[in-house]
Amino acid sequence: MSNLIVTVKSGADAKAVQGQLVARGLWVVRMQSGDRVHFAVERHSRHIEPAELLSIEGVAEVATPASPHPRLDAQPEVVRVGKTDFGAGLPPVMMAGPCSIESEAQIREVAALLAPLGVRFLRGGAYKPRTSPYAFQGHGEGALTWMRRAADESGLQIVTEVMSEADAGHIAELADMLQVGSRNMHNYALLKAVARAGRPVLLKRGMAATVEEWLLAAEYLLLHGARGVVLCERGVRGFDPSTRNLLDLGAVALLSQVHRLPVVVDPSHGTGRRDLVLPLSRAALAAGACGLLVEVHPDPANALSDGPQALAPAQIGELSADMARAGRGAR
Amino acid sequence: MSNLIVTVKSGADAKAVQGQLVARGLWVVRMQSGDRVHFAVERHSRHIEPAELLSIEGVAEVATPASPHPRLDAQPEVVRVGKTDFGAGLPPVMMAGPCSIESEAQIREVAALLAPLGVRFLRGGAYKPRTSPYAFQGHGEGALTWMRRAADESGLQIVTEVMSEADAGHIAELADMLQVGSRNMHNYALLKAVARAGRPVLLKRGMAATVEEWLLAAEYLLLHGARGVVLCERGVRGFDPSTRNLLDLGAVALLSQVHRLPVVVDPSHGTGRRDLVLPLSRAALAAGACGLLVEVHPDPANALSDGPQALAPAQIGELSADMARAGRGAR
Amino acid sequence: MSNLIVTVKSGADAKAVQGQLVARGLWVVRMQSGDRVHFAVERHSRHIEPAELLSIEGVAEVATPASPHPRLDAQPEVVRVGKTDFGAGLPPVMMAGPCSIESEAQIREVAALLAPLGVRFLRGGAYKPRTSPYAFQGHGEGALTWMRRAADESGLQIVTEVMSEADAGHIAELADMLQVGSRNMHNYALLKAVARAGRPVLLKRGMAATVEEWLLAAEYLLLHGARGVVLCERGVRGFDPSTRNLLDLGAVALLSQVHRLPVVVDPSHGTGRRDLVLPLSRAALAAGACGLLVEVHPDPANALSDGPQALAPAQIGELSADMARAGRGAR
Amino acid sequence: MSNLIVTVKSGADAKAVQGQLVARGLWVVRMQSGDRVHFAVERHSRHIEPAELLSIEGVAEVATPASPHPRLDAQPEVVRVGKTDFGAGLPPVMMAGPCSIESEAQIREVAALLAPLGVRFLRGGAYKPRTSPYAFQGHGEGALTWMRRAADESGLQIVTEVMSEADAGHIAELADMLQVGSRNMHNYALLKAVARAGRPVLLKRGMAATVEEWLLAAEYLLLHGARGVVLCERGVRGFDPSTRNLLDLGAVALLSQVHRLPVVVDPSHGTGRRDLVLPLSRAALAAGACGLLVEVHPDPANALSDGPQALAPAQIGELSADMARAGRGAR
Repeated sequence: MSNLIVTVKSGADAKAVQGQLVARGLWVVRMQSGDRVHFAVERHSRHIEPAELLSIEGVAEVATPASPHPRLDAQPEVVRVGKTDFGAGLPPVMMAGPCSIESEAQIREVAALLAPLGVRFLRGGAYKPRTSPYAFQGHGEGALTWMRRAADESGLQIVTEVMSEADAGHIAELADMLQVGSRNMHNYALLKAVARAGRPVLLKRGMAATVEEWLLAAEYLLLHGARGVVLCERGVRGFDPSTRNLLDLGAVALLSQVHRLPVVVDPSHGTGRRDLVLPLSRAALAAGACGLLVEVHPDPANALSDGPQALAPAQIGELSADMARAGRGAR
Repeated sequence: MSNLIVTVKSGADAKAVQGQLVARGLWVVRMQSGDRVHFAVERHSRHIEPAELLSIEGVAEVATPASPHPRLDAQPEVVRVGKTDFGAGLPPVMMAGPCSIESEAQIREVAALLAPLGVRFLRGGAYKPRTSPYAFQGHGEGALTWMRRAADESGLQIVTEVMSEADAGHIAELADMLQVGSRNMHNYALLKAVARAGRPVLLKRGMAATVEEWLLAAEYLLLHGARGVVLCERGVRGFDPSTRNLLDLGAVALLSQVHRLPVVVDPSHGTGRRDLVLPLSRAALAAGACGLLVEVHPDPANALSDGPQALAPAQIGELSADMARAGRGAR
Repeated sequence: MSNLIVTVKSGADAKAVQGQLVARGLWVVRMQSGDRVHFAVERHSRHIEPAELLSIEGVAEVATPASPHPRLDAQPEVVRVGKTDFGAGLPPVMMAGPCSIESEAQIREVAALLAPLGVRFLRGGAYKPRTSPYAFQGHGEGALTWMRRAADESGLQIVTEVMSEADAGHIAELADMLQVGSRNMHNYALLKAVARAGRPVLLKRGMAATVEEWLLAAEYLLLHGARGVVLCERGVRGFDPSTRNLLDLGAVALLSQVHRLPVVVDPSHGTGRRDLVLPLSRAALAAGACGLLVEVHPDPANALSDGPQALAPAQIGELSADMARAGRGAR
Repeated sequence: MSNLIVTVKSGADAKAVQGQLVARGLWVVRMQSGDRVHFAVERHSRHIEPAELLSIEGVAEVATPASPHPRLDAQPEVVRVGKTDFGAGLPPVMMAGPCSIESEAQIREVAALLAPLGVRFLRGGAYKPRTSPYAFQGHGEGALTWMRRAADESGLQIVTEVMSEADAGHIAELADMLQVGSRNMHNYALLKAVARAGRPVLLKRGMAATVEEWLLAAEYLLLHGARGVVLCERGVRGFDPSTRNLLDLGAVALLSQVHRLPVVVDPSHGTGRRDLVLPLSRAALAAGACGLLVEVHPDPANALSDGPQALAPAQIGELSADMARAGRGAR
């Protein structure tokens, strides 16, 4: 991200240069060695091209770091997954489904309910990352087969999480898109295994990952063979107990509007509260998200995991209608 | 906020009760004493009325804490400041102006530019909280007089920050609304002094304040005489260097959509980046903000403070148009 | 969230009960349903046995949650790894070595330097978790063999990180203790694979893991076969750029002094600054750590990773002498 | 952000220079403009003098920022308050007393108990910053008089918090040292008022203040007349509910050992848990704290504030003995 050193010409008016940098939206710190003045540009500054700075009177040089993620920088703006396009500025893609796949009947029911509501991707956990070893860990391979059939019947595509290196290959045979979860964003062995499976990947941000670390995880995926990476913001760890996580829509705006990367938002994990999923879905789209990943359960009382943050299917309809009304249209 | 203890009837099926609680969007922890089972409801659960829980089969009792902020709970949903209404669901109010008031000419120019763009409140610092004691601290009382004249000429109202107990009284004579800044949210002596001035107050959230602490600061204001409190989210301290702060739109949605409190958003401080102010303004409105507080500078190169996050007046026009297009209409 | 619910006897003086709870070091929130009063005890309260509360006049019942990590609770206080004991109150164990193993000569040199200084475990990365896919990823299996030989020559034991499920088995054949790194604390597939290898495990805390989540990761290990778990605090993500991480010695004191669990501290990652490793090592021992895990490099200028936080071997000597002087004696 | 820029000589081996920087404990980012190479040194690097870097072969220049707090840099290493010296490396000063002063009898009892235990300063709140407006706010001026008499009787000095600009003058007449609390660290009007009272000041760190912001608050104090500033770490806001705050002993080590500033630690607020106050007191001293500020209450059951984190006087004795045993001796 933005991180520059601007060197002032010998004898030039450093204060005037500083003014011009600030005028262009840069936060700078003046550094000096004898008569030589540099301005170090802080990372939370507006993005700017070095050429624009070189045109300022009194600027001698602009030094930049090499990008640590050249493959991600070179990824086309639009990532196609089967028949669906993800990209900043494109109509948003709705991805919905239960936290866990609990039975074939359940996933078929959900798929049939969601398909007419503008949903494009069925999401659902076959393998579940659970904080407690005693919690339900997913029905595994069987659940995946149920999900594939349910999706095909309803004309949906599938995104599902890979938790183990050993599973990446066979999950890739059934799923259209592989998900790397928050807890595994820094799991480099898994990133490599998932990448080698050769599918597009939905990469969730780690619970306390900086944006730069997240992009480096995406670089791992692309370097090792992933067919495109879509990022997913799902909330970072915060200090306030009134929401489960702290949804970082500033990062979403930064990635989508400044860096033109495809980023979707998971408002279910982002807040953990059913009563906030709708407003934050709208906010995510307004910030520039190119998609939403939402938990839905036909009968949350009997959900085997994360019931409190699941929407009822009717609320997905409300959200899709809302997206359509806002002129961005769920496709 | 939500924080309940649900006690299960002796002999009832505790697992079934748990399912019903989860189905209603509650995160619960089972606590037991002999045969007695309680469910402690975690704070990041959906808001719910105790009566709804009492209707569940097997629930014996629902214990709740007394609200720590009864006056805030009793505040009418709409806070009127002069001719302007702030309230969840009402058309959003645009508040804009320079970080610091630098001269009478500057503030008159800004006011004249902003008034036709749908802006209702002129904001501007006469007294500035600056991290460094050597930074420009504001022109003080003189600036306030300039601002009042500029606002009157252009038909705008004024909101400005009070930093010292000693200033609250005379600022209240000139300003329509008094602002308590982030750095002073926990400054109880100031809260009392500002409250006693008898004006409506714009209360910014502290940099690391929980929502509950923020509401308690509002309670201080109301208890000591403030004529209504409007909350202002401006980003909390985060760990990512790519934005200056981390804008917490989950808190905005919680306050506006669940608790029906008037909350405005300051996207300028929220990110510190000029290139993110517009998308986060839109996101804030989508999340439920009833207003925006935006920094504008006619000539950011020569701003005496916070230039990098200020918009040009033309961008305010874009934002107002955008608000109008979205059918929410800057008034 | 509360971790105890104290119910007041019908008709008893709730205020008096509250006073008694506070006197015992508990932070409480009063919850009420009609005449029934409960006190929810907050998590950041002093640890206390329910029986002690039941003896308070006016207390009817004390409800508690089931422990989510029964196997960890049942683990003996002392975890033996080969000839070395880890346990709260035991003399601390020094574990030291280079971030990465770079050559057989390097690791032999380091081992020979460290053994006379009171070091018991040689640490060193054969497989390295690196934020960038372009950074050096470790020499793998070869490095492990070098390390084993070097350790045997110098009479040291080995602890080394497992990054991939596929590697757990063969690493377990060469290492005395397996390390799960911060980035993998939530990687449940790896936790299971490492556990099945049947060695004792050094479990680092995740970058933003709560203490409870960390203990649940330890429970995964024990449930799936690990021969004892030693915890390792290495700093959590903070907001201050002056240290690389924020070392949480409060968590160390809590685990060692209150819960009597073996916890070692990694002051190298904890701060990232060579000039803070020594004082924080001393602080860690004072807080109750039963060991230290320190990065050492004989020639930090040419370190392939994390050179800036490595100590020179002479500094390890200083630390060991210091430990001995403090009467706790590196063994 | 970088705090140094190292420029490589034209034609020199930049990789070799990088190695030399790393060897000296610096984290660097390579920045380039054409053939010119700079290394930006990150803030979490070891402290180093520019001269040392200039001696590296291939280094052309080292640019540095001007210190933002020249007066603090120039403050003598030892801050004398009456007959007591605070300074890195000096024997630690014990400051203890009740959170709130509740009656003259209470404060006299506490003072008499503490004086023989090696305590030098009586602390106690006459004016209390309380999150809730309905909580006990302190007995004010009366309490101060009681405290002064109690201290004089027992040969103790006094430190007490100033919450309002209006109170600074009269509190300064009675107290030996004025405290600025966490909640007011960013309250610049109060910093000025307290400074003008001309006493030495104990400056607590704000709940989410960076070290640099904290030092700038100290600079405010010195610029406006304070007779010396002693810093006080009391825990920052964290995400883990098992402690009330997260005590940042890395910051303590940085300030005391690297910058040679006097810093004391408040382990009571630092954790909020009585069962962690002792181990964290020891850890604070090991990290380099030159004093402790501890809450004590003769009868915590009836404390009007913060009872759960107060020690009994006997525990202060244990702490003092411990300090003496460690050879650092409470004076």
